[in-house]
Amino acid sequence: MRLSVFVLVTAGALISVVTSMHRASGEAHGDAAPIFGINLPNGYRDWRLISVAREEGKLNDIRAILGNEIAIKASREGKLPYPDGTVIARLAWSYDPLAESSEAFGRSQSYVAGEPKNGVQFMVKNSIKYAATGGWGFAQFDQGKPASEAAHNTCFSCHEIVKARDFVFNRHAN
Amino acid sequence: MRLSVFVLVTAGALISVVTSMHRASGEAHGDAAPIFGINLPNGYRDWRLISVAREEGKLNDIRAILGNEIAIKASREGKLPYPDGTVIARLAWSYDPLAESSEAFGRSQSYVAGEPKNGVQFMVKNSIKYAATGGWGFAQFDQGKPASEAAHNTCFSCHEIVKARDFVFNRHAN
Repeated sequence: MRLSVFVLVTAGALISVVTSMHRASGEAHGDAAPIFGINLPNGYRDWRLISVAREEGKLNDIRAILGNEIAIKASREGKLPYPDGTVIARLAWSYDPLAESSEAFGRSQSYVAGEPKNGVQFMVKNSIKYAATGGWGFAQFDQGKPASEAAHNTCFSCHEIVKARDFVFNRHAN
Repeated sequence: MRLSVFVLVTAGALISVVTSMHRASGEAHGDAAPIFGINLPNGYRDWRLISVAREEGKLNDIRAILGNEIAIKASREGKLPYPDGTVIARLAWSYDPLAESSEAFGRSQSYVAGEPKNGVQFMVKNSIKYAATGGWGFAQFDQGKPASEAAHNTCFSCHEIVKARDFVFNRHAN
């Protein structure tokens, strides 16, 4: 009897763990982005960190690059090309001076992430489906809604400048 | 018989999941940092992202702030003070212009994380043990080794400028 209860609890806990893992990394929701037909992946904000970056100029943001399990493994191992199933997320925020730090230093010293900015972008590896664009599908969402088709037409041409790194700008930050 | 095998496999999988979760967030190794007696937490590179930041001036780096489960929950909810058990990690890397981007734009545009820089720092909340320093213990490790006692003496005085935010510089980046 005690064993049966243990078994039930164990099985229940395992199913719960597996279900939450699936929910965190597998599903997607909302409208699909144009051209590549990619939906906003659920749970991407909980993915692990590949690297951080900053764009100056017109974009003027500070960013984080996160990856699903397949992306993290490949990125950490530094093996190219990324395998099918890789999903890389690029989040960005406004680049804000930290008020308390500026006051203490008497000049700008520390910058932190403010509000979300420049959308959230994804690269999805599927070497068959996206063969025409280096095996990658691209998607941008602004406040959860897919960006325009025009916006999606610019992704691949920009990423082509890092073709030698399988079209991915960021290396794994150790 | 079939059930027994299922039970064994299920229990084995659960133990493996629980063990790896424990390893990822619970244990620590190596020498303890001075003053606060904090060991380098195992698996912190796999923690989830709180925010990103940049320091100009002498530090000149780009950073990621990661948190253990307790830190992520508290940070996301925006509730202060952080509960006991919170551990926040600050990683930093050299702030490197991305060569391919500079070439394409004819000027610096994109910056990425290079080699690790300025050590890895941790804040550990224990309101009893660290009552004299706002409930926080501080630790810095350079290439896995604790930094000097002198270095650890500077932590709290700097974090005091954000006392109103429970001594934590970064807010959760949504």
